[in-house]
Amino acid sequence: LVVTKLLFIASKKPNERIWVEPFFEALKEFGELTVVENGANLSEDQRADLIRRSDILLTGWQAAEIPVSVAEDRGGLQYICNVTGSLRKFLPAEIVEAGIPVTNWGDAPADRLAEGAAALLLAMLKDLVRRARNVREGGWKAGQEFYAGTLDGLNLGIYGFGVIGRRFETLIRPFRPVVRVYDPYVADIPETCERVESLEELFERSEAIAVHAGLSDETEGSITAELLTKLPDHGLLINTARGAIFDQDALFAELESGRLRAGLDVLQPDRLPDGHPARQLDNVVFTAHNVGKVYAPPGAPPRLEDMHRICLENLRRHRDGEPLKFLMDKVRYERST
Amino acid sequence: LVVTKLLFIASKKPNERIWVEPFFEALKEFGELTVVENGANLSEDQRADLIRRSDILLTGWQAAEIPVSVAEDRGGLQYICNVTGSLRKFLPAEIVEAGIPVTNWGDAPADRLAEGAAALLLAMLKDLVRRARNVREGGWKAGQEFYAGTLDGLNLGIYGFGVIGRRFETLIRPFRPVVRVYDPYVADIPETCERVESLEELFERSEAIAVHAGLSDETEGSITAELLTKLPDHGLLINTARGAIFDQDALFAELESGRLRAGLDVLQPDRLPDGHPARQLDNVVFTAHNVGKVYAPPGAPPRLEDMHRICLENLRRHRDGEPLKFLMDKVRYERST
Repeated sequence: LVVTKLLFIASKKPNERIWVEPFFEALKEFGELTVVENGANLSEDQRADLIRRSDILLTGWQAAEIPVSVAEDRGGLQYICNVTGSLRKFLPAEIVEAGIPVTNWGDAPADRLAEGAAALLLAMLKDLVRRARNVREGGWKAGQEFYAGTLDGLNLGIYGFGVIGRRFETLIRPFRPVVRVYDPYVADIPETCERVESLEELFERSEAIAVHAGLSDETEGSITAELLTKLPDHGLLINTARGAIFDQDALFAELESGRLRAGLDVLQPDRLPDGHPARQLDNVVFTAHNVGKVYAPPGAPPRLEDMHRICLENLRRHRDGEPLKFLMDKVRYERST
Repeated sequence: LVVTKLLFIASKKPNERIWVEPFFEALKEFGELTVVENGANLSEDQRADLIRRSDILLTGWQAAEIPVSVAEDRGGLQYICNVTGSLRKFLPAEIVEAGIPVTNWGDAPADRLAEGAAALLLAMLKDLVRRARNVREGGWKAGQEFYAGTLDGLNLGIYGFGVIGRRFETLIRPFRPVVRVYDPYVADIPETCERVESLEELFERSEAIAVHAGLSDETEGSITAELLTKLPDHGLLINTARGAIFDQDALFAELESGRLRAGLDVLQPDRLPDGHPARQLDNVVFTAHNVGKVYAPPGAPPRLEDMHRICLENLRRHRDGEPLKFLMDKVRYERST
């Protein structure tokens, strides 16, 4: 009986969110796992040697760097499974170019981001944060001075209809919004949505906008001051994509005047400076690039996340000789972080 | 040409949420509307006379009392359409007993309550209120000390599977929770849910509970201290039904200890006293029996709500000789508020 050798080399400590007990348990099905701590203290040769003597290398947040020499001589290494998304920091391009199969979590974060966007949208529509603050500060019933909207019949525009935008639309569909989509690169739009041909039209016909576009030369700064003026008073913006898609000064001007409302997971730069006046606004909720993250509740036993499930699925595919999901090639690698 | 005479008698001023411009517009299709203000200043005979000389009486929040004498002699009155829910304050039982058709908004509030419950559930799962407070008070990224759950795979119990509970389940289904339902009076449970046979089992197997039961001798106080102990640490309770379904002291003890979390639209009594320590809790959001209400955004043109749509649909049915929706009989009247 040949036992598959799985290896993970942590730069220092193994990341606690990846390395949870149910993941260790589940990996037993696929071989014998060795976890090396403080891999940054090993020499390149020592790391390369460990990797060559294993069948599958697991990587992920806080993994130790893979020596380039592994590209030239991979030894027994068959497959590198990156449990998370980013990999360029520890996985040199040469590894991918040498044809060693490398996968990552692919679209695993999509469901969580879409769920986070839906949560932000509903919370903003129901003004939950302001209501909670009102109660904390001695008030009770929220009167008509509070915002109290519904998704039912709301004119909702989705900017960007990739994996996340699609999933978002699936999540909110039973709430019966009137959905319009702008994405010139997507051919198939479901019957529950109407395609519009320009960003101008999207903003003219929407009461709320959810941004799910990727960042590119085309999308950067594409939500301009002028576009924002097309939204009605109390128009609502949800951004879980990238901050730089907005003209952020224009966005903040609309928020500070109280004319628009927003749930913002992302900004450009990512962090609002200490003492920034927008922190005090009642019509904005900031979630600090964090709304798509899922932790086990403090004190609760950890559970498998999407990233674990995708890794385990790929280990099964590798074992059974099936095509791997989210396989890296040169193009995907170069687009990765 | 005979024009249908529609009448509304306000006790003082007509309620502003009912009497919005698009409703006046839409009513034109069904006849000529007369709105009488300060009806409380008229004599009973004057009011009865006005009613007898109209075809359809509209009632709703802040309507003037209908004299009992209308039950004995209805004149030309064909139908009383109550735009809102409660009616016993201004519509005596004799009217219904005399066979005058009376309808109200029926399950119109169900969709909005279900949406409010879904919003509370998602906001609590993502700890949005606490995250927002963190940013306001100078923090930024929410670490693992914050709650960051997902509906995906969450063991979610629904207590009470009437119109609202069903709608709630439809709304959250795409988020892929594992739903269990306790409702001994409902025969058909959709395939997406598992029926459980006792409240004990529901609480033992759930991480979050949404309460959608009506208040009855059986449900009052049915969520006891002992049931609450069956939930895991950080278990989440959403109540948009009635406060008295809980042993509220037991609930508050669990919330004040920080063991459980909750989104509470209802309490018993309805208002948390000024200065109550629970107002300061980070693990509870109170929405003051208001989460199901929808207003037009401040300053935005008002739009038709569900109550208007149901009223207009019933006026159409009445005109076209079709059966009315949500028709009152003695039993429904007695159960009404």
